[in-house]
This record gives sequence, structure tokens and C-alpha cells, in this order.
Amino acid sequence: MYAQRMHQTLAKERASRENRARLLISCPDGPGIIAAVTKYLYEAGANIVRSDQHSTGPDLGLFFMRIEFELPDLDYHFTSLQAEFSSVASSFSMQWEMRRASIPKRMAIFVSKEPHCLMELLWQWQAGDLFADIVGVVSNHEAALPLVEPYGIPYRSMVVNKDTKSVAESEQLKLLDDWSADVVVLARYMQILSADMVSRYPRKIINIHHSFLPAFIGNNPYRKAYDRGVKLIGATAHYVTAQLDEGPIIEQDVHRVDHRDETEDMRRIGRHVERVVLARAVKWHLEDKILVHGNKTVVFA
Amino acid sequence: MYAQRMHQTLAKERASRENRARLLISCPDGPGIIAAVTKYLYEAGANIVRSDQHSTGPDLGLFFMRIEFELPDLDYHFTSLQAEFSSVASSFSMQWEMRRASIPKRMAIFVSKEPHCLMELLWQWQAGDLFADIVGVVSNHEAALPLVEPYGIPYRSMVVNKDTKSVAESEQLKLLDDWSADVVVLARYMQILSADMVSRYPRKIINIHHSFLPAFIGNNPYRKAYDRGVKLIGATAHYVTAQLDEGPIIEQDVHRVDHRDETEDMRRIGRHVERVVLARAVKWHLEDKILVHGNKTVVFA
Amino acid sequence: MYAQRMHQTLAKERASRENRARLLISCPDGPGIIAAVTKYLYEAGANIVRSDQHSTGPDLGLFFMRIEFELPDLDYHFTSLQAEFSSVASSFSMQWEMRRASIPKRMAIFVSKEPHCLMELLWQWQAGDLFADIVGVVSNHEAALPLVEPYGIPYRSMVVNKDTKSVAESEQLKLLDDWSADVVVLARYMQILSADMVSRYPRKIINIHHSFLPAFIGNNPYRKAYDRGVKLIGATAHYVTAQLDEGPIIEQDVHRVDHRDETEDMRRIGRHVERVVLARAVKWHLEDKILVHGNKTVVFA
Amino acid sequence: MYAQRMHQTLAKERASRENRARLLISCPDGPGIIAAVTKYLYEAGANIVRSDQHSTGPDLGLFFMRIEFELPDLDYHFTSLQAEFSSVASSFSMQWEMRRASIPKRMAIFVSKEPHCLMELLWQWQAGDLFADIVGVVSNHEAALPLVEPYGIPYRSMVVNKDTKSVAESEQLKLLDDWSADVVVLARYMQILSADMVSRYPRKIINIHHSFLPAFIGNNPYRKAYDRGVKLIGATAHYVTAQLDEGPIIEQDVHRVDHRDETEDMRRIGRHVERVVLARAVKWHLEDKILVHGNKTVVFA
Repeated sequence: MYAQRMHQTLAKERASRENRARLLISCPDGPGIIAAVTKYLYEAGANIVRSDQHSTGPDLGLFFMRIEFELPDLDYHFTSLQAEFSSVASSFSMQWEMRRASIPKRMAIFVSKEPHCLMELLWQWQAGDLFADIVGVVSNHEAALPLVEPYGIPYRSMVVNKDTKSVAESEQLKLLDDWSADVVVLARYMQILSADMVSRYPRKIINIHHSFLPAFIGNNPYRKAYDRGVKLIGATAHYVTAQLDEGPIIEQDVHRVDHRDETEDMRRIGRHVERVVLARAVKWHLEDKILVHGNKTVVFA
Repeated sequence: MYAQRMHQTLAKERASRENRARLLISCPDGPGIIAAVTKYLYEAGANIVRSDQHSTGPDLGLFFMRIEFELPDLDYHFTSLQAEFSSVASSFSMQWEMRRASIPKRMAIFVSKEPHCLMELLWQWQAGDLFADIVGVVSNHEAALPLVEPYGIPYRSMVVNKDTKSVAESEQLKLLDDWSADVVVLARYMQILSADMVSRYPRKIINIHHSFLPAFIGNNPYRKAYDRGVKLIGATAHYVTAQLDEGPIIEQDVHRVDHRDETEDMRRIGRHVERVVLARAVKWHLEDKILVHGNKTVVFA
Repeated sequence: MYAQRMHQTLAKERASRENRARLLISCPDGPGIIAAVTKYLYEAGANIVRSDQHSTGPDLGLFFMRIEFELPDLDYHFTSLQAEFSSVASSFSMQWEMRRASIPKRMAIFVSKEPHCLMELLWQWQAGDLFADIVGVVSNHEAALPLVEPYGIPYRSMVVNKDTKSVAESEQLKLLDDWSADVVVLARYMQILSADMVSRYPRKIINIHHSFLPAFIGNNPYRKAYDRGVKLIGATAHYVTAQLDEGPIIEQDVHRVDHRDETEDMRRIGRHVERVVLARAVKWHLEDKILVHGNKTVVFA
Repeated sequence: MYAQRMHQTLAKERASRENRARLLISCPDGPGIIAAVTKYLYEAGANIVRSDQHSTGPDLGLFFMRIEFELPDLDYHFTSLQAEFSSVASSFSMQWEMRRASIPKRMAIFVSKEPHCLMELLWQWQAGDLFADIVGVVSNHEAALPLVEPYGIPYRSMVVNKDTKSVAESEQLKLLDDWSADVVVLARYMQILSADMVSRYPRKIINIHHSFLPAFIGNNPYRKAYDRGVKLIGATAHYVTAQLDEGPIIEQDVHRVDHRDETEDMRRIGRHVERVVLARAVKWHLEDKILVHGNKTVVFA
């Protein structure tokens, strides 16, 4: 029943975005970029709905831009639209992408035992707040199965330990491949991905770390926070890179704790911060609102 | 001594903004506006440093834009730059302003007995966070004089009561005129300005109201908040209009209170919210980051 | 399956609180109260785990206290414990309650179409954050049924409109009676309860209002917030009294919005505030952390 | 003029607290402590105005308590009151202090070039929010002199560098001694105190670190925060111990930043967080609301 309702919701969302596209640009800063891009869009008959840009200043000399536009019969024009833009792009040495807003990203979710981040994503998704195809859920446990089943989303679990890790990862990569996943969300997945796996999905794997990074890197952050006696605990959503907990930060938030809160209370309070921070980061990613340079993000929230 | 140091700080700030200008636009939404504006700036040799825009959507059909740009020898070109833009502007029925960032607004501050908002403005100003000429402080009390004196800022006080109100206001208007004030900040000035006075400074008088509007309009909001038993108290900075506490809201914030907080505690906690909220609103106004339509603000913070 | 797991979770929670009780006191302030109460508990062999008190100050002259204590074989002693306390209580004119922490409150949840508050309560409940027996869900729609079913919680829906309202309310009262409900949570239940119904559950019906009360009382608060151009939107959990939206406030929180947020965005952002604020208030109520006097709450959070 | 006004304010504050005292207790947890303490106070004729306690739970087995009470003619009774309590205290192996609320702590403030934290303390002090005798300001610069002078507070500056450090510290220790300082606030004092100096004022030196500890320990935290690309910046007030930035945390808070904020912006935003966090910590210390165990604080805020 859920599956069917979600199908309808997605179809409706898709229809409402039928003629909308997003243009994402990163390039060396210089004069005339905005003029050239907006002139191009105007002449193509596009109407700019929203535009954000950011210059890093002379030190780095980088320019970032995200434009959301509407164009009648986008479907028909899309290929030529891209082709024509490439000449504008090359004259400014742009890295760029043009995406149709009506095509949901294909999102796979990894989870271990604690389900709160997964639940939040499912909840926001079914409420229409997250526009995505959830192509499957992968877990090293069975625990989250009943949450996923009512939505008709594939759920694959596998044992992950020292001995099975590389086999399990091969299986996971195959699943991602079969599902044509283009974004992977680690929703409290308590296993470290191999460098190989990370390298196949650059800037496409989002993790939630249960601390305010760079404080309390690694495991057991709530225990460490308790031991240090901090007065705020936090969570950090970031893109996964080969360095554990060192990838570009997308979003962070905190919640107040006090001397009465034991490690277990921090864990409970932290769950609320984690799920909210991860959901925000995923939403921005799905809406192409994040640009990455070096180890940093530009978020046009 | 302070006076001299401030003079140097302002001079330095001024120099650093010598070639910077801001273009503010409000107009009916439609295709080609951004392209036309950015093309114009490009051809004029300007480099866009920051650009923000907002479309209200089809219901209201309004478009707002703020562009910050650098142009070598701005001083020399400024008049012709404006003249040339007016043809672009008229083809889109724009209301617009082009302002030089190096020219500080001339700010007058009104205050009654409680000095915390005035102090915050002075503090942020001397720290270089607020770029303005503080042309004078007006008060219906003597209390704040020692705060203002070290800066060499003129301080004028006058008795304001039922009998003297209209005389006092004439005097105040004369002062604003003498000082060529172009923004008036009511920093906990506990007198209601006449409709006439308000009408002379449209969207140029900023007030701080000590509640989270529209809750607790009028006087004694902390008393009312205490009586209602709220769990958060707030403050609201807004442009002053003829309707008391009904003008366009610029900024709001809140702070948590609990059952132990009496009216007096709320007042004390509230002071911190008030001064921060007012200072943010003033900063945005001074940097031309606020556009007003109807009873609302667009804030490109 | 869920039903069974929850049964186990509750049983475990119950066991861990077997010997814990809470003592709640309201009385006129005066010397010796704490000494008398703690002496009594000490002599009864109880160990105080947590104690909170609040004096309103001389104006109101009220004293509130909440003590959480452990006593071996509480079950066996509980009746005599209460009997003995009544003499202490009467010498200070106390209103008081002694409750066993191992007995979950019997909670009924009312909901209309929007399920986010119900979902949050169910989620926190199954995660062990809310200790309650959820005895049933009542709705004027069918929408939330699939959320509730997996938990084996009774779901009763009935048409509520002008013609059916009084019949529906009789049915609801009968359900609450059959279920022996002792707390009713209005989790975005969009119908106004009759004064009669409210009077049967004094300080036992918790509502979530989707605004920062007392701003935007009544219906359509997000629309009103949008029209007023506020920069923060909020939610308020309160006990329901005969005056709509006027009951004692338990908890409030806010979230930032800006000029880009339409009424619909505020609704979406607001859902997150509503569910969190309601869940906090329900948790405090379930843990006997709220005392009410007049139209205010004392929350020993 | 200020000096005189402050004298009057302090005298008034002092009078209003004439009969108020605070009792601070740390001891092994066990039955009967609260009963014994409150019985003692009751029999002594004291009225408890506020009482807070905290048990760490069975692992640490510690109990902390803070009681604020009123006793007529406190001055007259104070010595015997203390003497009598010592027998209660010894039977529970308490560490304890009884302090008269009317006696302000003697506070010295250390500052370097950046004056915002000093200004905040002075502001809150003159507004009556901080009850203390500010006995002197020590600096390695002249910059803050004009802020302090109007209050008639002694200002002593000395060159501090590698060569002069030990001489400077001797001078500082002598000043603290001459002033009979019993609390030292490092209000952005950018020098590291020697272990010897720290050991003379255990749990009496409060520092503000300009990061959310334990993130960005050491110097240049805003630069590090910028390099890491965090989305929130913070500040931490803590007691100074021999380990740099490792002492017991009293208070922390954060403020949001985004990709547009350069190191310099973070510094500016951070100043607001720093001054507020430090002022809160100092206020709690002055009101004897902080108890320390191991490397943690219990704050009865």
C-alpha cells in the first residue's frame, strides 16, 4: 500500500518539475561569467527561478554557481541545451553539470542496528520532503527490515566481519551496480568502507558521524564526549573520502547536555541531532545544492 | 582619544571600499532581467563580487536583486554609471538604487534610560563591525551621556512628556536635519514617534521591540510574557511605520526561560537578545542588504 | 512482531523501575518543608535519586517539589508509605501524589490527517524514550492506520463534522473509558474538543499548537506567520483547557525562516518543530516532571 | 562618575543579600544526606530559597549539593553556623563551603589586545548582572586602558615576552596578592600562564578558549576551523589547569557559519560567542553555582 502511494507521490513530484533544470558551475573566477551564463539562458528561452553564486576571493580565485531554471519542453531541448552550453563553459574553463530536476537521484541507504537515521530518511521521503528513488537498503543486520518492507524497498543484509568483509563489499558493490545507485547514504552504518569502494563513488557517499567534527574522531564519540565533560554534543554529515571522518563537511548541529547526562543520555539526545543533520545534508545533495572544492563544501541551502 | 581612533578606523574602512558599489533592484518578475543587468555591468568593466536575487513566485510576481561590484576608479565613473543604468532599469520598470559602499550612512541613535542597545551599537561600531557615521545620539534622559562622550559624538537630551512632546519632536527633527541623518535607530527609545515624524523617514527608522512579534504588542511585553508563562522570550527589529509594532520585520531571535524566571529575569535575559537582534538589523541596513515590499523584508544577509 | 518486541521492551523497562517512585508536592511555602519530607523518606528507608524544588517567591508564596526515590520492596510498602506520608502532607497543607515509576501511564493519541507527530511519538516509544502504554489511537480519518497497525495498537476512526460531532465525542469518551486512558495527546488533531470532554481530563490532555503562542492563536497559523513576515516560526505544547490555545504552556521551540519560505515551506519546516516540541512535553508528562499552578507550568526537565 | 555609581549599585546589591548564604557540598553518595542537611538548616532557623543536588550514580558514587538560604541576622550567626555544620559534614565526609552571598568575590581580569570579553564583563557588571569587586585589570598591552579608566579600576600593564615572562608573572602574582584577588578571569589573555601560577589559584582561573573544545586546541583556532570547513564555530569557558585547554569545561556555545565566511569573519562572529560564553561562566562562578570533580563541572545554573 505504501509502495503504491509513494509511486503516486513521486509521479506527481516528477510532473511538477517537468520543465525544471539545474546548472552547476565551478571555474576560475573572472569577469563576465554571470553575464555569459545568464545571457545564454535568456537566449535559450529559459527563466531563472533561483540563482546562487560564490567567489572565494583572490587567494583561491574560484567561482561557484548554481542556477535553477524553467524551460518549456525541457525534455525535447535538453540535449541541445547541454551541447550549446559547452562552448560557453569551455571559454571559462568550467567544470559543470546540467541536471533535470524531474529525475530523482537513485539513493541506496546503508544501515547497521540503530534505525533512527534510516527512519528519518524514510519519513521525510514519504512526506514528500526528499525527492529520490530509494533503490535499496543494505545492512549488516536484519534489524531494520520491518521498517523498510512496507515501502516495498529491496532490503539486502549480509554478515560483515574481518573474514567476510571483502566478500561482503563485493556483494554491496554489485548491488549498487544492479540498482544503478548514484548516491549512497551511510545512515549509521558502523563499518568502514574500503578505499576502493570510496573511490568508486567520489562525493557521492554521505556519512553521519555522531560528533561535532573534528572533535571526537573515530569510534565511541559519546563516551569520549562524556569523559571530556563537554556541554554540547553534535553530529556531522560529510562526504566520505579515504581518510576516516576527514571528508568535506556538509552540515553540523549541536544539542545542549549537562552534568546529569550520562553517556547513554548523550546517545539518546544525539540520535535526534544525527537524524536531523543527516536528513538536511541528504536533501541538499538530492537537490544539487552542494558544490565541493578541496576538502570543503559550498552549500547553496 | 576614541574619537580620533574611530576617525582612523573609518578612514581605513572607507579606503578599502573605495571602488565598491551596490545595486539594489525591485521590479516585476520576467525573463532576461539578470542577463540584462549582468551584461550591463560586464560591459561597464565592473566585477561582480556578490549577487543575490529573489523571485516571489507567480502570485506576487516580484523580483528583487542586490549586486555588489568592484569598478576601478568608481568615483570618476559613478555618475555616468548611474545614468547608463537608467535605460536598462526603465525597460524592466525597476525601482533601483546604486550606492557607493565607501560612503557610510549617517546614523542617529535614539535611546531612553536602558543603555544596552546603544552600548552594543557603539561597541560593534568601534570594533569595525558597523560601518556608519554616528552623527548624534538623542535621548529623553541624561543617563547615556557618559557612554557617548568618549567618542566625541554629539548627545542631545530633551524632556519628553505629554506637554512637551510636540516641541521635543520638532527639536528632534531639526537635529536630524542638521546632522543630515539618513537612518534613525530607536535603541530602546521608549517614546512613540508621531505619524508625521515616521513619514519623513520611510523605511529608515529601525526599532527594537522587546518581544517576539506579533506576540505581546505594546508596552510591558516581559510582564505579559511572564503572565502567559511562555518558555521562550524574544526580540524583534523592524522598520517603523505609522502602526505601532506593525512595521516590516527585519530580524527576530529568542532565548529560553523557565519557571524560575520572574519578569525581572526575563528583562535581564531579554536585554541580551534585544541588543544582538538590533545590531544585526542595523548592520544589514547599513550594508544595503534589506529590500522592503508591502509589509515584508527581503534580507540578503 | 513489533507488538511483541514492544511488549518485551516495556517489560524490561518496568523491571528496571520496580523500586522507584516519584513524590509530587504543591503547597504554601514555609520553613521546614524539605526537612520534613526528606526526614520522612530517610526514615522510611528510601534513597533520594533526584530532587527538584521551586519557590515562587513571596508574592504567590507557593512551593513545588518533585522527588524521585528508590525503596527496596516498593511494591510491598507502597500503600503504607502513602498512608504515612499523609500526616506529613496535611501539616503543610500539601496537594501531593506518590506514583510508582514502573507503572506506565495509559496514553491515547488523537490524530487527523498529518501523521508526523504521531510518527514521532511511536518512534520515540519503540526506541524506549517514552515509557507508556499506548492504549489506542483515535482519528477522524483513516490515513494513519498503516502506521499504527504494525504495533498492534487499536485504531478507531470516526467521521467528525458538525452533524456527527457530539455522537463522535460520546464514542471517543467511551473509548477512553474502555481503555482506562489517563493521558490524551492531541497529535495534530484538527478538531476542537468540547468543554465537557476537556473537563473530564483536567491537565491530562496535551495539545501541540503549530505556532509560537500567544502569536497566531486559532487556525492557519503558518498562513498568518507568512502574511506577517516573521523570521522565526514556532510550536507550542500545552495542556488543553476550555479556552482554545490558552492552556498552560509546557514547551515551545522555534526554527528560522526567511523571505524565500512560502506558507507551504513554513508548514514543512514547522512539522519538525511540532513533533519535537510535542514529544518533549509528552515525555515530561509521562515522567511526572510537570506541575501546574494557575495557567503556568513548573517543569523539572 | 562611573566609579561612584558602581559603588552605590554594589552597596545596594550587598544590602539585598545581607542575610543570604550558600552551602556547597561534595561527598560520597549515601542515604540521609539531604535529610541531615535540611534538618540542620531548619533547626538553625534558615529558610531554603533554592536547592540543587546531583548524584553521579553508582559508578562514581558522588553526591553534590548547593543550597541557598536566608537567615535573619546572618552576620551575627555566621561563625557559629559554620561551626555547627562541621559535625554534620564530618559524619558524611563532606567537602564543603558556606559563603555569604553579600560578600562579592574579588575578581581580577587579564586581557591582551582584543577587548570584547573585557567589555562584556564590564557591561554586565555595571548593569548589575555580575556581582563582584573588580579589583584590577592586568594586560600585556595598553589597548584596554580607556575602557577601564572611567570605572576607576586599577589597570596594570607589563611587557610579556620570552625574556620578561617570569618577571612579568612575578609582578602579576604580586598584584593578585595585593588585591587579594580570589578569582582570575582570562578575558582573551593571549599568554600561557606558568604551572606555578596556575597551581596557586586552583579552580579559580577561568579562561575563554575561542573554539568548541576539544576541537582546535591551541592557537589560531579560527584559522583551523576555516581550513577544516566546519559549519559551526564555538567558544569554551573552562577552569585553567596545568594542561593547556584541558581544564574542566564550564560552558560552551556555537554560532553558524557558511562557505562565505573567511577566517576573519569567523573571528568577528566568534567574538560574540566568546564574550557571551565567558560572561555566563563568570556569572555562575561568582554565584557559587559550579562544583568541580575530576576534570568535570557540575553547574547548577
